[in-house]
Amino acid sequence: MIDLRSDTVTKPDERMRKAMYEAEVGDDVYGEDPTVNRLEELAAEVLGKESALFVTSGTQGNQIAGLVHCRQGQEVIMESQAHLFLYEAAAMSALAGVQIKTLKGTRGAMNPAEVEAAIRGADIHEPETGLITLENTHNKAGGAVLPLENMREIYDIARQHQIPVHLDGARLFNAQAATGISVKEYAQYTDTVQFCLSKGLGAPVGSIIAGSHDFVKKARKWRKRLGGGLRQVGVIAAPGIIALENAERLKDDNANAKKLADGLLNIKGVVIDNEVETNIILMNLSDSGIETAVFLEQLKENGIIAGGFGPGIVRFVTNNGVSEEDVDETLRVVQKIMGA
Amino acid sequence: MIDLRSDTVTKPDERMRKAMYEAEVGDDVYGEDPTVNRLEELAAEVLGKESALFVTSGTQGNQIAGLVHCRQGQEVIMESQAHLFLYEAAAMSALAGVQIKTLKGTRGAMNPAEVEAAIRGADIHEPETGLITLENTHNKAGGAVLPLENMREIYDIARQHQIPVHLDGARLFNAQAATGISVKEYAQYTDTVQFCLSKGLGAPVGSIIAGSHDFVKKARKWRKRLGGGLRQVGVIAAPGIIALENAERLKDDNANAKKLADGLLNIKGVVIDNEVETNIILMNLSDSGIETAVFLEQLKENGIIAGGFGPGIVRFVTNNGVSEEDVDETLRVVQKIMGA
Amino acid sequence: MIDLRSDTVTKPDERMRKAMYEAEVGDDVYGEDPTVNRLEELAAEVLGKESALFVTSGTQGNQIAGLVHCRQGQEVIMESQAHLFLYEAAAMSALAGVQIKTLKGTRGAMNPAEVEAAIRGADIHEPETGLITLENTHNKAGGAVLPLENMREIYDIARQHQIPVHLDGARLFNAQAATGISVKEYAQYTDTVQFCLSKGLGAPVGSIIAGSHDFVKKARKWRKRLGGGLRQVGVIAAPGIIALENAERLKDDNANAKKLADGLLNIKGVVIDNEVETNIILMNLSDSGIETAVFLEQLKENGIIAGGFGPGIVRFVTNNGVSEEDVDETLRVVQKIMGA
Amino acid sequence: MIDLRSDTVTKPDERMRKAMYEAEVGDDVYGEDPTVNRLEELAAEVLGKESALFVTSGTQGNQIAGLVHCRQGQEVIMESQAHLFLYEAAAMSALAGVQIKTLKGTRGAMNPAEVEAAIRGADIHEPETGLITLENTHNKAGGAVLPLENMREIYDIARQHQIPVHLDGARLFNAQAATGISVKEYAQYTDTVQFCLSKGLGAPVGSIIAGSHDFVKKARKWRKRLGGGLRQVGVIAAPGIIALENAERLKDDNANAKKLADGLLNIKGVVIDNEVETNIILMNLSDSGIETAVFLEQLKENGIIAGGFGPGIVRFVTNNGVSEEDVDETLRVVQKIMGA
Repeated sequence: MIDLRSDTVTKPDERMRKAMYEAEVGDDVYGEDPTVNRLEELAAEVLGKESALFVTSGTQGNQIAGLVHCRQGQEVIMESQAHLFLYEAAAMSALAGVQIKTLKGTRGAMNPAEVEAAIRGADIHEPETGLITLENTHNKAGGAVLPLENMREIYDIARQHQIPVHLDGARLFNAQAATGISVKEYAQYTDTVQFCLSKGLGAPVGSIIAGSHDFVKKARKWRKRLGGGLRQVGVIAAPGIIALENAERLKDDNANAKKLADGLLNIKGVVIDNEVETNIILMNLSDSGIETAVFLEQLKENGIIAGGFGPGIVRFVTNNGVSEEDVDETLRVVQKIMGA
Repeated sequence: MIDLRSDTVTKPDERMRKAMYEAEVGDDVYGEDPTVNRLEELAAEVLGKESALFVTSGTQGNQIAGLVHCRQGQEVIMESQAHLFLYEAAAMSALAGVQIKTLKGTRGAMNPAEVEAAIRGADIHEPETGLITLENTHNKAGGAVLPLENMREIYDIARQHQIPVHLDGARLFNAQAATGISVKEYAQYTDTVQFCLSKGLGAPVGSIIAGSHDFVKKARKWRKRLGGGLRQVGVIAAPGIIALENAERLKDDNANAKKLADGLLNIKGVVIDNEVETNIILMNLSDSGIETAVFLEQLKENGIIAGGFGPGIVRFVTNNGVSEEDVDETLRVVQKIMGA
Repeated sequence: MIDLRSDTVTKPDERMRKAMYEAEVGDDVYGEDPTVNRLEELAAEVLGKESALFVTSGTQGNQIAGLVHCRQGQEVIMESQAHLFLYEAAAMSALAGVQIKTLKGTRGAMNPAEVEAAIRGADIHEPETGLITLENTHNKAGGAVLPLENMREIYDIARQHQIPVHLDGARLFNAQAATGISVKEYAQYTDTVQFCLSKGLGAPVGSIIAGSHDFVKKARKWRKRLGGGLRQVGVIAAPGIIALENAERLKDDNANAKKLADGLLNIKGVVIDNEVETNIILMNLSDSGIETAVFLEQLKENGIIAGGFGPGIVRFVTNNGVSEEDVDETLRVVQKIMGA
Repeated sequence: MIDLRSDTVTKPDERMRKAMYEAEVGDDVYGEDPTVNRLEELAAEVLGKESALFVTSGTQGNQIAGLVHCRQGQEVIMESQAHLFLYEAAAMSALAGVQIKTLKGTRGAMNPAEVEAAIRGADIHEPETGLITLENTHNKAGGAVLPLENMREIYDIARQHQIPVHLDGARLFNAQAATGISVKEYAQYTDTVQFCLSKGLGAPVGSIIAGSHDFVKKARKWRKRLGGGLRQVGVIAAPGIIALENAERLKDDNANAKKLADGLLNIKGVVIDNEVETNIILMNLSDSGIETAVFLEQLKENGIIAGGFGPGIVRFVTNNGVSEEDVDETLRVVQKIMGA
């Protein structure tokens, strides 16, 4: 099967499995796991932050950011299609007690002027804005890269108003692979940043949340409350280190996605909704006369799995389990289905 | 001073003061205040609900609805300019732990098809929709009346999905005064309804929240947690009864607002943003060359108070302290300012 | 009926009713109600605090203290029989998300050394202590007065650890009436203090929460979220002013309670659990052979109402509706019941 | 070093490492990881529950139980020294918004009559009891086994009052090893149960929470909110399966603890606070004239690590890294220190 549903489906390779097998471990609740300590130091350095913390998922990293940065009753500004708003089961309101104010963006990027206009809190009727979150690359916008300049402008506004900025960088390394702008350059315009080891980077489990020493100290206690304080975590940190050291590999995923998108556009009747910058393609079947469910079923019969992503949309995500040949095969299959 | 800032500024009249003076009271935490019991029975009857409960404000009534209907981690659907979203300091997320999903409406009315499309929760990534709230009349939309048919359609959808509907009817009696459709007819399309005794109805303090017996039983305990369980509450329930019995008076407020709006439209340069159906007028100064703050200041110097209501907008709200003559005077003053 | 259930049952007297009738009012959400402003200034002065805020109940005042002082996930230390723990429906955990750590006290007073030993938070497994609350007089301990020295010692410890102290002073004026130590002297050993206008002081509705300017500013927004932001609140603030100006009257309640207690002790078989310092008497029927429910029923048949207060305990609370003659009558009736 | 601080320090053995290396994995958020599915089925079967769910820690399992069973504003009854109350950083109040009511137990076991007396909620002032939690074996009580009969009695009471019971069985398999009563027999007297794969059972990471199908369905969404929804979780589930299949090994830990305790009692001046039933020994230095910190330091200098566990208490926990010879060595060292 060629699995194009998500880059979360990536399986650990031989090197990662070996790393797990050999990992030096200790009890991380006591701070004694040398492997996770090494991963956290490496991650902090790569991001240019004072400190970093291993968490079990991107959702956990994002939620901890909300819990540390905000107080109950505040408001968080984010883009209207943010993963945090759509796909984390309302956790930030449930756990941190904050209201989410969404702004419609362009390719995932909010207009800085609109962000500034949305800041509020002086009046007794209004919640105080406690956090601004960004998402780069932006999943629902089809892996769109948030322009560095957009991040800088929003961060400047946030600092003027003394509001922290958190970056949901689940796929931040895909942005780096696409633009050549380092994750450190992106991260400089946020107070805290989360990225996933388990998506395109290929580790089986885990994410990183990074920020100041003070932030990470508080994050550690909130991680404990959420049940993310683990024991011999080195066994999963070890493949995380390999993932992080091989982030260059994401260029292949981005290139494969580009090739797939170009090929699809040559097929009569195919509409692609997003400009393909990284590893995500949103194919729009609305005008094709083919039902999404039927299309997905036919793909599957031909050995390819993809996912629905809202009405009429099919999402393809390239990942380390998908080769250039798989792309060719996918194009052949789509051609066959669309031609029928 | 002619005070057109809001209908919340209304002061109790002689009859209400006398009612307070004479009110028969008891300890309502023990259920022994005969006056509040009478008010609650009257309110339930007028709304066509099994039971009603006195609360100290519209915000408290709305928040209790969220706390009783929802579970933490659910999502609440409401119009994007709802009072509950804009002006209750994020309380529903802070207290009930729910995420708010807003839909842009037309004159305060959400499109039922969009409401249905927004319901979610089966997938593990999604919060379950736990409540739909409506607002009638809709404050931010300029006192717009929600059409009965719109309410019915949304309620039908909600019932199909077994989702409760709550009506923020802070100014529901203004809708009744405008359309002749009774509050009971409106309330039939909601599970619970809140209305204010202290706005146009003129009581100094208080609101009502109504629904099933079971709802009110739970609401009573949540009211206690919020600190709304009072003692000899009859002294404020007594003017509430008078307010409720004289809801017809709101026709005067609506008529005065109509007269004021018609007059304003005859003044060169005046733009009114809303269709004036009830007691609220939103005057738009954006193209007038006059700053909102300056305009409000000049009104004040001429004995009239109004309020800003977002960039370039001045809100006039007629109320029981504003006579037909006050309307004439207001028109003279605006004419003078705009003419200058 | 002689109502000895609680001092919450007190009804407003003629002066209070007249004050309501005549109260000058305004919209307090805009800060324009002169009567409530006067009450708040008076209360702040009497307590020796920078600022004070009218709230609708003691529970609301206590909850606001928790919400302003604490952050979610902290721990609050209080006496094991505190009203806040027993009778506020778990509101502090529900609203502020804090864990309550109780310490068994002596006559309502916690041992300062035990308070200090209970402070925690450095370790990652532990919540940080975010607040210490005291209750004076202590309801469940039978109106016991917290010694000033005990308050001072706990406050010293709290300051050393930079932990705020809140006083649930629902009946603080009964302590002043009993000891001659002013409420200001008590309040100096707390950061914030709440007292009720509606218990022994006799107002129909309302309480005060006082503290620093910064505290009250934040408290005002939380009051709004809980639905305690009212409009023409002067109508209930007016009797509150009278209540506050006549706090001396509580000496009568305390004296009547003393007389009642002394008389009861002369009746064969009567056991009183508490040392009667203020206006509460806890009569213990456990060894009398009489069921509490039966005893209360017999009282009622003889024109007297009291309340159960845990297994085998009957609580008598003197208040402004209970005269010296009522005390004599109560003694006659109890004598009759116990003698039968 | 002989590490007797906790059974959380256990490191995965060769078999576990090999299992990780070879684990068949998939994306568990899609339910496609065959290894975790196998672990969950096995765990459900062993516990006699309908369904089981892998969670990343015991704390996460316990917190999910609170979030699924309770509603905000309810009260949870547990023993006063429960791990949930002492060492989970107030998470249950922070996340689920519940108040915790503790009862002092005997060797970790609450008196069923006291549990029943503590159930409350009818009155408007009272929170409703929403959950009762038990802990078996009880950590703070020195690994004490909760008697099966005690669990049955409490469960019967809970069912009569329609209140769910959750078992924090972090070390439930140590109870089975000690008494021969199966975990299934214990689990029959609870609605949900959590146990740790990562303590004595020896897996590097993870716990199980089990209950009805409906419970696990809800638990799965709450796990996602807390960030416990992982991807190729099979790599950590694989050693979990081995841990579970080799639970018999805990008999060795228990036997080593018994031997260590017996030996310690032969050393002059040694006081042991607990009856050693499982793998925990609480040595009390209060009357020895030796400071806990000094004692721990001297142990360390002699190659042994243990932990402080409250004032004057040193805790030894046997685990799979501690052999019979290590016990002998520990006894020699303690003898040397105490004799000095």
